[in-house]
Amino acid sequence: MRAVDLIRKKRDAGEHSREEIDFLVSGYTRGEIPDYQMAAWLMAAWIRGLNRSELAALTEAMLFSGEVLNHADIPGKKVDKHSTGGVGDKTSLILAPIVAAGGLTVPMISGRGLGHTGGTLDKLEAIPGFNVNLSLAEFRRVLHECGTGLIGQTAEIAPADKKIYALRDVTSTVENIGLICASIMSKKLAEGIDALVLDVKTGSGAFMKREEDAVRLAEVMVETGKQMGKKTVALITDMNQPLGRFAGHAVEVIESIEVLSGRGPADLRELSLELSAWMFYLGERTKSIEEGRRLAETMIATGQAKDKFRQVIKLQGGDEHAVDEPQRLPKARSHVEVRSTASGFIAKTACDQFGIALAILGGGREKKEDSIDHAVGLEFHKRIGDRVDKDEPLATIYYNSDARLVEAKGLVVGSYLIGKEPPAAPLPLIRRIIGA
Amino acid sequence: MRAVDLIRKKRDAGEHSREEIDFLVSGYTRGEIPDYQMAAWLMAAWIRGLNRSELAALTEAMLFSGEVLNHADIPGKKVDKHSTGGVGDKTSLILAPIVAAGGLTVPMISGRGLGHTGGTLDKLEAIPGFNVNLSLAEFRRVLHECGTGLIGQTAEIAPADKKIYALRDVTSTVENIGLICASIMSKKLAEGIDALVLDVKTGSGAFMKREEDAVRLAEVMVETGKQMGKKTVALITDMNQPLGRFAGHAVEVIESIEVLSGRGPADLRELSLELSAWMFYLGERTKSIEEGRRLAETMIATGQAKDKFRQVIKLQGGDEHAVDEPQRLPKARSHVEVRSTASGFIAKTACDQFGIALAILGGGREKKEDSIDHAVGLEFHKRIGDRVDKDEPLATIYYNSDARLVEAKGLVVGSYLIGKEPPAAPLPLIRRIIGA
Repeated sequence: MRAVDLIRKKRDAGEHSREEIDFLVSGYTRGEIPDYQMAAWLMAAWIRGLNRSELAALTEAMLFSGEVLNHADIPGKKVDKHSTGGVGDKTSLILAPIVAAGGLTVPMISGRGLGHTGGTLDKLEAIPGFNVNLSLAEFRRVLHECGTGLIGQTAEIAPADKKIYALRDVTSTVENIGLICASIMSKKLAEGIDALVLDVKTGSGAFMKREEDAVRLAEVMVETGKQMGKKTVALITDMNQPLGRFAGHAVEVIESIEVLSGRGPADLRELSLELSAWMFYLGERTKSIEEGRRLAETMIATGQAKDKFRQVIKLQGGDEHAVDEPQRLPKARSHVEVRSTASGFIAKTACDQFGIALAILGGGREKKEDSIDHAVGLEFHKRIGDRVDKDEPLATIYYNSDARLVEAKGLVVGSYLIGKEPPAAPLPLIRRIIGA
Repeated sequence: MRAVDLIRKKRDAGEHSREEIDFLVSGYTRGEIPDYQMAAWLMAAWIRGLNRSELAALTEAMLFSGEVLNHADIPGKKVDKHSTGGVGDKTSLILAPIVAAGGLTVPMISGRGLGHTGGTLDKLEAIPGFNVNLSLAEFRRVLHECGTGLIGQTAEIAPADKKIYALRDVTSTVENIGLICASIMSKKLAEGIDALVLDVKTGSGAFMKREEDAVRLAEVMVETGKQMGKKTVALITDMNQPLGRFAGHAVEVIESIEVLSGRGPADLRELSLELSAWMFYLGERTKSIEEGRRLAETMIATGQAKDKFRQVIKLQGGDEHAVDEPQRLPKARSHVEVRSTASGFIAKTACDQFGIALAILGGGREKKEDSIDHAVGLEFHKRIGDRVDKDEPLATIYYNSDARLVEAKGLVVGSYLIGKEPPAAPLPLIRRIIGA
C-alpha cells in the first residue's frame, strides 16, 4: 500500500477500506507518512467527505493509536460528557461531582480553551494547586478513590489525534464534521467509558453557528459512538448568549460552586441537571431521565455533590477550602462597568465576541503556548429579551491590566444588539435530543 | 496575508487574486510556506480548479520565480515546440536543426523521460559526449553560433515549478489540466521565445488518453500563451501507436537522422514537416504554413538541416561524426523477435505498455535518480491496420541483459490487439489544430 495511491483515491471521491484508513493513520503517527502527504489526504477528505464506515474506521484507528483505558476493576458504569465548546460553559465542573456523588464513575479527559472558547482544564487550574497533568496511573488512583478525575490529554491517549489535529490547524482542514467527530470520539472513547452524553452547542457563541450543522455533527457522533458499542446521546443546546452570568476562570469556578450549592443562574442550573440526568440514565443508575434529574437534585440538596468536588480537588493537589472560601481563588485587581448606549431590549448577542474580549484581557489564548490570566472575567447583567435603559450596566469587566481594556470594552458593548421592541420569545436552551 | 487563509479560500472554491497566487508561489519557493501547506493548497486547487485569471497568475508567478531568458541580441524570432510526451516521439531532434537551418532561433529546454514516456535529453545523451547540462551562458553562446541549443532545465529556470512539481508527484496532484499547463508554460516561456508550437498527444500512449482531455489542455495552454503575448498554437496528434519505427535512445537518434536525410518512416516525417511548418509560420519566417512546409523540405533536401545537427552536436561537446556513422552510437548486444500468436489485423496497441517494456529493459526510469541504458530499444514492424500472420515478427527487442527480458517480451506481445477483420480506417495523425 502506498500513501500516494490512497491520496489519489480520496481525491477521486473513492471509498477507503478499513485497512487503508489504518495504514494512513498508523503510518502518519509513526512518522512514516510525511506531513505533506497527510495534508493532501486531509484536504481531499475535507472536500470529498468520509462515509459512515470510513468515519468509524478513522475514529477507531485514532482511538487505538494509543492507550485505551480499562476500568473493569472499578464497579459500576463509567460515563462522561463532552461539550463542543462555548462561552461560560462550565458544566463539566458541576456534572463530574454530581454524577460521581450519585454513584457512577466519571473519567473526564478535557481540553484547554482555544480561540473564543473556554476550556475545562484552564478553569480547574484557577483553583490553587489543582493538577490536571496526572499520569494515567495517578488518574486511575483518583478515579478509584472518589469516582471522578479531571485531567488533560496525555501522550498515551490518541496520539494520532494530537498529531493530526495540529496539522489540520495549519492546513485549513479543521471545520469538517467527519474529522471533528473522529477527533472528539477517539479521545472520549479512549477514556474507557460505557456511555457518553454530548452537548453540541449552536448559535453565535458556538463553532456550529447554524442549528442544522450542529444536528449533523451530533448525528454523526451519536452514530459513531453507538457503532463502537457505547450508549451515546446528544443534546443540541443554545449558545446564542453566554451560559450563566460569568465567563472567565476563577469566576466560573465560583459560579459552578453556586450551582453545586443549590443556587446559581437558572440556565446553568437547568442544563447541568439535564445533562446529569442523561448521564445517570445512560449509566443505568436510574430507570428514567426524570429519576436521574431527581437524583441530581438530591446530590445538590444534600451537599454530597459539593463534598465530592472538595474531595476531587484535594486528591488532585488543589486547595479544597476554596470551595467554601472563594477569596482563595485569584481575583482581578480592577473592574469596570460596560453601560448601554441606548434604551430598549436585548435582541441578540454576538456571543463569540465575548470570548474574544476575554482572551484580549488575558483570559484566553491565541496560540497553544500562550499562558493565561485566571483572574480576569466578564459578568453579564442582561440576557436576551431583557429591558435595558441607556447608561444601565450591561456587563462588568474584571481585569488586571489597562492594556487592551479599551479594545475589550468596545467588543463587549458592540456584542449587544439592542432593539426598540422586545424580541420574539428566545429559543429554548435545550433544542433537541439526538439518539434518545 | 496568511497561507492558511488562502488554503481555506480555495478549499471553499473561492477565486484567488494575482497577489494571493504570488504570495503562495514565492513564499513556497523561498521556503517560507512549508510543504504541508502547499500540499493542502494543491489538493484544494486540484479538486476545485483554477479559472483563467488564476491560471495566468500561477503561470506568471512560476515563470518569474527564476530567470527569464532574453535573446534580444540575436536577430530574428525565437520559436520552440513542446510535446506532452509519448512513445517514439523524437521530433525535437529533427525540428531544432530544420528550423535553425531555416533561419529562426530555437532555444530548446527539454525534459527527461519519466514513466512510459521518453525524454529529449536522454535521447541526446545517446550521442557520445553530448552535454545537455550547459550553463545559461554556454547555452547563449551555442544559440548565438548556430541558432539552436538543446539543454535541460537549470536551477535558474522556473525554480518554483521544479519544487512544486516534486511535491505534486508525491501528493497525487499531477493530473490536473491547470497545474500541468502552468508547469509547462512557465518553463517554456522562460526560454525567451516569441512563439510556441504545442504537440498535445492523445491516445493509448499519451498522458491524455481521451481526445477531449487533450483538447482541453491544448485550449488552456494556447490561451495562457496568448495572454502572455506569445503566438501559440497546439496540434492534437495521435499517440495510439508509437511514432516512427523505433523507441529507445540510440535507435531514435538514428531514425531522426534518417528523416533529416530525406528518408525515415512516413508518420514521423509527416509530423516533423507539419510542426516545422508551424514554427516557420508563427516565427514569421514564412507567410503561410504551406510555405513553411516547403522551406522545411528544402532544408532536408539540401542537407542544411543535417549540417545544422552536426554543428549543434559539436558545439555541445558531442561526436558529430555519429550523424554519418551510426555505429559510433551505443548498440545493444542482442536482439530477439517478438512474433504474433495469431493471424489477422492489428486492431489497436496498448502503446504506453511499449514504453514500460522499454523501461524494463533499462531504457527508462522508475525514479528520477535512475540511470538508463541508451542502447536498448524496440523496433515496430507492424502498424495499426496491417495484416499479420501467425509467427510473423511484430517487433524486435534490442537488449543488453537477459534479466526481465521475458517480462518485456510479454508486455510487447500483449500490447498488440489482433482482430479477424481489418479495423476501421485509422484516425488521422494530426487530429485538430487549436488556436490557429
